[in-house]
Amino acid sequence: MISSARAEIITIGDEILFGQIVDTNTQWIGTQLTDIGIRPARKTSVGDNRQDILDAFTQASQRVNVVIVTGGLGPTRDDITKHTFCEYFGTELEINQDALALVTEFFAKRGRAMTEMNIQQAALPKNCTYIPNLWGTAPGMWFEKDGVIYVSLPGVPYEMKSLMEFEILPRLKARFSTHIIQHKQIRTIGIGESFLAEKISTWEDALPEHIKLAYLPHFGQVKLRLTGTGTDQAVLDKQLDEQIALVLPLIEEYVFGYDSDELETVIGTLLMNHNATVGTAESCTGGYVANQITSIPGSSRYYEGSVVSYSNDVKMSVLGVSRETLEAYGAVSEQTAREMAEGARRVLNTTFAISTTGIAGPDGGTPDKPVGTVWIACATPEETFTQLLTLRNNRKINIELTCSYALNLLRKTILKTSLAVKG
Amino acid sequence: MISSARAEIITIGDEILFGQIVDTNTQWIGTQLTDIGIRPARKTSVGDNRQDILDAFTQASQRVNVVIVTGGLGPTRDDITKHTFCEYFGTELEINQDALALVTEFFAKRGRAMTEMNIQQAALPKNCTYIPNLWGTAPGMWFEKDGVIYVSLPGVPYEMKSLMEFEILPRLKARFSTHIIQHKQIRTIGIGESFLAEKISTWEDALPEHIKLAYLPHFGQVKLRLTGTGTDQAVLDKQLDEQIALVLPLIEEYVFGYDSDELETVIGTLLMNHNATVGTAESCTGGYVANQITSIPGSSRYYEGSVVSYSNDVKMSVLGVSRETLEAYGAVSEQTAREMAEGARRVLNTTFAISTTGIAGPDGGTPDKPVGTVWIACATPEETFTQLLTLRNNRKINIELTCSYALNLLRKTILKTSLAVKG
Repeated sequence: MISSARAEIITIGDEILFGQIVDTNTQWIGTQLTDIGIRPARKTSVGDNRQDILDAFTQASQRVNVVIVTGGLGPTRDDITKHTFCEYFGTELEINQDALALVTEFFAKRGRAMTEMNIQQAALPKNCTYIPNLWGTAPGMWFEKDGVIYVSLPGVPYEMKSLMEFEILPRLKARFSTHIIQHKQIRTIGIGESFLAEKISTWEDALPEHIKLAYLPHFGQVKLRLTGTGTDQAVLDKQLDEQIALVLPLIEEYVFGYDSDELETVIGTLLMNHNATVGTAESCTGGYVANQITSIPGSSRYYEGSVVSYSNDVKMSVLGVSRETLEAYGAVSEQTAREMAEGARRVLNTTFAISTTGIAGPDGGTPDKPVGTVWIACATPEETFTQLLTLRNNRKINIELTCSYALNLLRKTILKTSLAVKG
Repeated sequence: MISSARAEIITIGDEILFGQIVDTNTQWIGTQLTDIGIRPARKTSVGDNRQDILDAFTQASQRVNVVIVTGGLGPTRDDITKHTFCEYFGTELEINQDALALVTEFFAKRGRAMTEMNIQQAALPKNCTYIPNLWGTAPGMWFEKDGVIYVSLPGVPYEMKSLMEFEILPRLKARFSTHIIQHKQIRTIGIGESFLAEKISTWEDALPEHIKLAYLPHFGQVKLRLTGTGTDQAVLDKQLDEQIALVLPLIEEYVFGYDSDELETVIGTLLMNHNATVGTAESCTGGYVANQITSIPGSSRYYEGSVVSYSNDVKMSVLGVSRETLEAYGAVSEQTAREMAEGARRVLNTTFAISTTGIAGPDGGTPDKPVGTVWIACATPEETFTQLLTLRNNRKINIELTCSYALNLLRKTILKTSLAVKG
């Protein structure tokens, strides 16, 4: 444990249990608590059910010393959090005049009439510290009992976030923040989780107790997340950097970035640094690569466009792939990938161009070219590099993996080319 | 309650507690369990910590009779779910030969060497029923003890969903489902949730008790989901169809399909029925429309390709948009959208072509053309139809909305054209 504080996040509401909404609140709360050195030890979701909520409070109080509760504060009768807190603490509701004034002002400002239901939103358990909610009508509440802090917040994301940011986190930080938690990530591509683990196992075994490693795989990429805990930000930062410096030589060829770097942003930066542009020629990815590149705001500075040549006609008429190549080697071949990339570079008038052609599935596979057979190419002013991928997944994943590998081929090609230029 | 089953969903992994990933698995699992009449009673997230996991298992077994566990099955050492199950059940791991054969085949197919770590993925607790995972390397597991079912699944969403869909849900349904729950959906586009609700409020109020209505809005579309509960499949089916027949006349112009119909599949069917083809010319959507169309297996039968003309140069050089048009009206204009669509139809040699040009944001807006200003067009052999969109969202949503509206413009154009032909 890093600070004396361990937190449990409790969400209340049938809509979360039944899957009617995706819960993003607890993810955000988890990051915020972690950042101030309070360890999220558990998350619990219960329905709008008195006994389930009481049980959750009791069990949480036995596990942690900070309990963050969201939801169940609305005016409608199925929101029972406040009443359940009263029962849990053996107290009752009373109108809080500050809360009432704020709710009254809230409705006055909007020129809306207040209902009895709205007035009841100002009724709070007698033992709570009132936390004003300037962003909605449901007040926040802070309780302390037997060394455990209970915080109750509305479930509306921006109300919850505002209350946490301006009221709750500062109080928790003042109370607990003795230790720091820091994350650093190494982003890799082109190597599986288990192979990566084998390459760095000696280093991983030698990690100090206060630095933990996690593998986070995602579409041909693996994030290596180092989580360090300590008391001195600068020291911890240095220790993490030292570990990264130690492991990097073992996996350098697979590393494309750090922390929040994405392949698309890394490539964008590389291209801008070299005053270079890129275009794409896509068959099996059907525009997905273009879509990923243009998902980055400002990508128009280095991205010219794409020819999605789904049919052979378009491969020939727009990209200038030769009929002979298509007939001799087929659409899914190194030669076609090469001519597509070179054609895209010419037609779109770019420094680099990448191409994809393959069998995404589920149909279209043959014995010698099964589903998942993909050729990618990257054309440069000097030469064209190609790569064969043999993927074995469903259509969607094959497309996403092909995109990752194509962007990585572009990345490596830019680096290679720039080295050549430097050399 | 419709069955005796109450479920708890347990997710294992520090990355969820710390908020490094948004947990979408439990939301999906919640909907699936609800659909077969099993009530999700609680969700619990614990870290990669032996004692916390053991506590979660014990407490869940006291609350529910179905425990769904996801995560912590990877090959790396921070994944400890299997070992903890062994400790919980007082058993040990042993290599499961079926699992080993499957993992071996998985790597053989990919022509990749297997590491000791991969082999260990076939080691399962002796008391578990092995659930083959055809989508990854971590097997699913099914345990039963003292009247409680424990299911362990990998955390990778598509592996988890595939295992649930093909293995787990059928078993749970066979075990618990006493009543029938049936869903029917009406898919609409081009009308907001609240306007739709007004149009059908009388019908909605008259729905029988055992048929519930849900509005599921998603990127310019609204799904109307009817959920019927009963004991006789045929009767329930008929009752749902009768309700659909009643509501349809009120909203016909907005309805593009039913149940699992997607705009992309509806368009594909329309195009094939008319022996027609389509191509796209995309600026602000950057390949997203092409990607959506080609997400449908077999789309190569009617989809020729796309020109993603992100720069004006490509708009002119590949699509033949005139410099005069771009200078006089700008890239985001009805005229440019029109010339892009007509150019795409010519260059890609298709029956129809749709184009998108707009300001997706966050930058690039001007007082007269703010972020969210988008022109779309659909070219046919006879004429070209255009439409102005004024969206007010972030980049990602603007792109997705533009795609929905462009595909819907294509759908309506095909219908209009075919009527003209018929007439």
